[in-house]
Amino acid sequence: MKNIDTLLKSANADAYILYANSNDPDMRYISGFNVSDPLLCIKCAGKRPALIVPQMEKERAAAESACDVLTRGEIGFFEYYEEFKDGFKAQAKMTADYVAENGIEGRDGSAGGEKPTVLVPENFPIVFARELENYCTLTVDRGGMGKIRSVKTADETAKIRACQAVNERALAFAVNVIKTAPADNGELRIPVGMSGEGDPLTSDVLRGLIECFFLKNGCVAEETIVSCGAETAMPHNIGHGVLCENEPIVLDIFPRDTKTGYYSDMTRTVLRGEASRELVKLYDTVAAGKKLGESMIRAGVKGCDVHNAVLKYFEDSGYHTETEGFIHSLGHGVGLAIHEQPSLSPSGGELAQGHIVTVEPGLYYKDIGGVRLEDMGLVTADGFDLFTKFEEKLIL
Amino acid sequence: MKNIDTLLKSANADAYILYANSNDPDMRYISGFNVSDPLLCIKCAGKRPALIVPQMEKERAAAESACDVLTRGEIGFFEYYEEFKDGFKAQAKMTADYVAENGIEGRDGSAGGEKPTVLVPENFPIVFARELENYCTLTVDRGGMGKIRSVKTADETAKIRACQAVNERALAFAVNVIKTAPADNGELRIPVGMSGEGDPLTSDVLRGLIECFFLKNGCVAEETIVSCGAETAMPHNIGHGVLCENEPIVLDIFPRDTKTGYYSDMTRTVLRGEASRELVKLYDTVAAGKKLGESMIRAGVKGCDVHNAVLKYFEDSGYHTETEGFIHSLGHGVGLAIHEQPSLSPSGGELAQGHIVTVEPGLYYKDIGGVRLEDMGLVTADGFDLFTKFEEKLIL
Repeated sequence: MKNIDTLLKSANADAYILYANSNDPDMRYISGFNVSDPLLCIKCAGKRPALIVPQMEKERAAAESACDVLTRGEIGFFEYYEEFKDGFKAQAKMTADYVAENGIEGRDGSAGGEKPTVLVPENFPIVFARELENYCTLTVDRGGMGKIRSVKTADETAKIRACQAVNERALAFAVNVIKTAPADNGELRIPVGMSGEGDPLTSDVLRGLIECFFLKNGCVAEETIVSCGAETAMPHNIGHGVLCENEPIVLDIFPRDTKTGYYSDMTRTVLRGEASRELVKLYDTVAAGKKLGESMIRAGVKGCDVHNAVLKYFEDSGYHTETEGFIHSLGHGVGLAIHEQPSLSPSGGELAQGHIVTVEPGLYYKDIGGVRLEDMGLVTADGFDLFTKFEEKLIL
Repeated sequence: MKNIDTLLKSANADAYILYANSNDPDMRYISGFNVSDPLLCIKCAGKRPALIVPQMEKERAAAESACDVLTRGEIGFFEYYEEFKDGFKAQAKMTADYVAENGIEGRDGSAGGEKPTVLVPENFPIVFARELENYCTLTVDRGGMGKIRSVKTADETAKIRACQAVNERALAFAVNVIKTAPADNGELRIPVGMSGEGDPLTSDVLRGLIECFFLKNGCVAEETIVSCGAETAMPHNIGHGVLCENEPIVLDIFPRDTKTGYYSDMTRTVLRGEASRELVKLYDTVAAGKKLGESMIRAGVKGCDVHNAVLKYFEDSGYHTETEGFIHSLGHGVGLAIHEQPSLSPSGGELAQGHIVTVEPGLYYKDIGGVRLEDMGLVTADGFDLFTKFEEKLIL
């Protein structure tokens, strides 16, 4: 919590206020609590964060969170509600009073009843913000918490590595299904011995198999991309049809560890049968682009420079980018969010030791298809500690 | 979109602005698009909503969304960015200009360059709101869109029923696993013929089996509650240990259909072996409370009255509620959000035809355990059309 205290100090704020459930990475980071309904969390300068929970969550929050747990009753919410007859109005006054009592002791003039200053994340809900502004000076944190979260501790790094290890086992399993699937007139079938054997092996079936693999291994994945053929030219098309021979299959997999909340992210493009010469050349170019990007990464390098170098390499190789081509960013941070700071994109800033980033160049053309390859690793003082060990091979 | 136009009119607003991904039920409802990164959606009065997407999402959005799709380039985002050098500042001016051009034609004085008025949801991000306020009058929608979403069309009702049908098949499967699990010194084991047979049947194992069942059937479920024994006294404890004989097992399952985005929600409490007399009495009381609640539901009745009647029934039966007892609401709306309007709680308002709600009384005591039973159905003019057909039986 030291970094957050530093952030509060530099913003001249008495407390950081969150109102979110734990799908929100800031909430998960500060509270350490896994909860599906939004909760209020108040982190006063120099104090442990306070998590305000309904009575029914008290015990679990006390056992599992990293916070001082207060029930709504204990913090007086119901009395505030009685006064304001509106949940957000009540919560706003309650929050302001709590900060005034607990948050501003170190500041000059606090004894004089000065208005507290609170820092809130960019996604803080407007309805609560407007009420809070009646009692507090409210400052929006433009990326400060995201910057703190972007630098991973050894413990966080180990958690992300562990998630990536499961990810690679899942991809190996998926690739093996594609490899061993019988083909019927160019269409793949579910392999012998698997549930539904002989039925068409569709993107949806393989996605289901991959996502089940994660559930059995302590992770959860959604929107897993298993696209084939023409679909691969749309980078975010998750895929729906039957998987076919002689066409690229993009597997982009980003599970979250259900216990820790941390993500990993990896993409491979594979093909059963024979690839067109154009596709092989596309693949080799993307692979070389990825290698180039990875070779440039170390603390102090700018994300935009890495992105632009790969873009230039593609241009120099004859692959132009307009509405087709390399139409997304080279990479992004990964942590409690699947996309977080830093960014390897035209606007990407300086990389720092402890950043965990993906490198995922892709080239997409309607008449050839799409290829994307994605690794993940840790930015170090002098290089890039690659977590991804999975082989790179187009033709299975 | 007619209801949204009515909402805009009553708020005297020119447009409804959303900035969210499709986990946000309002965004999913208005855009009809499934996307994991936040997008801007502008619904001007009397117009189809406009969805602003990155180039790479254009084709998919055009094919899948219910919007007029504009790429960032087409709406001029990059020129705005060039001017402001900040994504939210640029997006705010761009949004205001778009609304001024497309949204206020029907209003008096619009030709004179009047400032547009926009309506935003409660969870609209403060960072974007503050920038928008430079160009627009910004009004927070206090539940208007949620109220629109709460009344389901026949098509939505069919989608929720379909999700509930899968839910019941999943629960039947789960109950059968518990029923056929061999017991060893009171601890259940994974049944013969299943992967891991003979290993301890833990909450996590059964949760994984249930969630895989959903994946194979076009749904996704997270945080499925499979709690046992002492855990059942904490209503939101998802459960972790080995499932045991002679103790209550709470199964609370709320899958979302991955194609439609709609949820269903159901809870049963079961037991293998012998139940204590106290637990049987608790179960029978909760079952009778549910029946009472369901019998009261019809359009025009207040949610608070249903909740309070069940609470009173429990009190009259000798089950008091303080830190233990009936410590949550009786029920909630279900749709594109798992918890939405209306509410069957002390603050619940009038039920309307087309509402889809759960009825889920529970009683929780440390020395007995917890019991919760939850059904779901449609509020009609003269009653409650129950979707949930699953049998109610404590002892398997």
